[in-house]
Amino acid sequence: MSSSFAPLQNDTFLRALQRQPTEYTPVWLMRQAGRYLPEYRAVRQKAGSFMSLAKNPDYATEVTIQPLDRFKLDAAILFSDILTVPDAMGLGLYFEDGEGPKFERTLRDEKDVLALQVPDMANLRYVFDAVTQIRQTLNGRVPLIGFSGSPWTLACYMVKGGGSKDYRTIKSMLYSRPDLMHHILRINAQAVATYLNAQIDAGAQAVMIFDSWGGVLADGAYQEFSLAYMREVLRLLKTEKDGVSIPSIVFTKGGGLWIDQLADIGAGAVGLDWTVNLGKAREQIGHKVALQGNLDPMALFAQPEQIRQQVKNVINSFGKPTAGSGHVFNLGHGISQYTNPESVTVLVDAVHEFSRQIRVD
Amino acid sequence: MSSSFAPLQNDTFLRALQRQPTEYTPVWLMRQAGRYLPEYRAVRQKAGSFMSLAKNPDYATEVTIQPLDRFKLDAAILFSDILTVPDAMGLGLYFEDGEGPKFERTLRDEKDVLALQVPDMANLRYVFDAVTQIRQTLNGRVPLIGFSGSPWTLACYMVKGGGSKDYRTIKSMLYSRPDLMHHILRINAQAVATYLNAQIDAGAQAVMIFDSWGGVLADGAYQEFSLAYMREVLRLLKTEKDGVSIPSIVFTKGGGLWIDQLADIGAGAVGLDWTVNLGKAREQIGHKVALQGNLDPMALFAQPEQIRQQVKNVINSFGKPTAGSGHVFNLGHGISQYTNPESVTVLVDAVHEFSRQIRVD
Repeated sequence: MSSSFAPLQNDTFLRALQRQPTEYTPVWLMRQAGRYLPEYRAVRQKAGSFMSLAKNPDYATEVTIQPLDRFKLDAAILFSDILTVPDAMGLGLYFEDGEGPKFERTLRDEKDVLALQVPDMANLRYVFDAVTQIRQTLNGRVPLIGFSGSPWTLACYMVKGGGSKDYRTIKSMLYSRPDLMHHILRINAQAVATYLNAQIDAGAQAVMIFDSWGGVLADGAYQEFSLAYMREVLRLLKTEKDGVSIPSIVFTKGGGLWIDQLADIGAGAVGLDWTVNLGKAREQIGHKVALQGNLDPMALFAQPEQIRQQVKNVINSFGKPTAGSGHVFNLGHGISQYTNPESVTVLVDAVHEFSRQIRVD
Repeated sequence: MSSSFAPLQNDTFLRALQRQPTEYTPVWLMRQAGRYLPEYRAVRQKAGSFMSLAKNPDYATEVTIQPLDRFKLDAAILFSDILTVPDAMGLGLYFEDGEGPKFERTLRDEKDVLALQVPDMANLRYVFDAVTQIRQTLNGRVPLIGFSGSPWTLACYMVKGGGSKDYRTIKSMLYSRPDLMHHILRINAQAVATYLNAQIDAGAQAVMIFDSWGGVLADGAYQEFSLAYMREVLRLLKTEKDGVSIPSIVFTKGGGLWIDQLADIGAGAVGLDWTVNLGKAREQIGHKVALQGNLDPMALFAQPEQIRQQVKNVINSFGKPTAGSGHVFNLGHGISQYTNPESVTVLVDAVHEFSRQIRVD
């Protein structure tokens, strides 16, 4: 099926992920399709709820494309949620206004945990349909990124049901019943790999694993309960489709202390948040993986000249790209819903301008 | 005045901070006097509010001593709040039930910022009175730690008024008006130093700077807006009182990536949260500073045997203390209010047991 898609006109993002030379640093933004855009809010209102937007391929396609019509972004990312997999397991994902995602049912005891199964991918058909439709609509403009939450990050929500300040519920299970924790994570890893492979089959040209909550774990626990299961996902992941490479990106928010280990689990690229020194990270792991990041999303609340300076700092921190290195510009976390879209224009244009400059300097 | 205090019976904590040999690893816990103790909750109820407890030296003394009567802790820490300084600046600190600290007035514009002044230490008399009374009541049992929030951490609350999910208000100021941010921080640094010096004069035998929110800053911004001002505090700090050394501890929560820089600003010890590998940290900076930490407070929600194992892991991770190294056992953050006090007994006894063992092994 994917062989019927139009040829790619801008492959800068994919080449950077594969540490091949590019004329400039490609840029996309986590949560680039979202509430900071008035045109997104209009579709969101039409759809009624976040989930009815996400589950409707027409709407999902429309909002995925929106930021590309405004900004010169070098990649599109499927509009969806990191928690679709546990939703498909029957936990009942929902969103309350102004709050994070929640589940109607959570894993409370051994019985719940042992009943857990890899979901029927038919329950996630709406995601794969959206991927194919987006890819068709993109018509080769830029590559499409598929994604999922990491096994650990999914588990955080599955055990607790919603966000948490101190992760007491999930960490209580981790420290007192590590056997149950591992059982959940084994199933999650298999589910995430199956899910991402189906996104690749449907047309995703790169995939990203969001380990949004790996950074709350203790050293030791991170390796055992998050890193190991991302490695397992990557082991099961397709690395090409119809002879074309499918690069993968892993991102542990708050995991800057562990990037040397994260670079060794088989992903092509490692995402970095703003606490990481990009230049040092390049020295450390830039010969093994491409780097993605890492501007503080709050820098977008400054004035245009200041935003340009912050972008320049990131570009300079990575330094002039050389053979075998790759940088994809991004924020260190999702863009804030309060961001002025004009500031994103400033950012995207500055990335292209300064990154062309540094290549000729 | 402090010369009238009783001689110290247990100086293990102070010796470890000064990287001198100790028979075992001393232990205290951040927030060891607090809501997880029923005897604390009784005093808190009697006092009415958190602030009326903190502002009454009798109550403050009583709750500071409580955990020492239950557990074989090697240090006491003044019962107070990290935000007393901005309260004394006139911002009106208060606590809503179940929520974090808030201020009635915040710094909203240039006018507010420029009006800010180092507070009259007379407004903080209740703190110094409590320090002296606690020191007298301790009667030499263990040393007393004084503390303050870091200049940056105080500023987070002063600009925003309360907790924040994305630090948008304070970071907007940081990125768009760095001049105002620096103005606040210069005043905070002077205020914190004056405040800690007055605590030392009143009887504090060690001081700790809590940079609870330094970890939310971007690399670069951390050095400029948090680290630099902790260095300034330390530059102004007394290092001895009546010929006795006063060790200092700095702790940036979430600052594991910057501990090499944190070890270079003049403090005697660096606090570590649970994301840091203690053994690696010792290799990195253990010859320059003592290390304090770093068990995940959530490990206390496991069963006794599991808590013992987690304690053992931390002790083993630091390894056998040798000349010129020092370790103070602590959690990587304040103890949770939901902790079972019995679990703290298990922890404290395990620290003493395993750390004696590793010294003879």
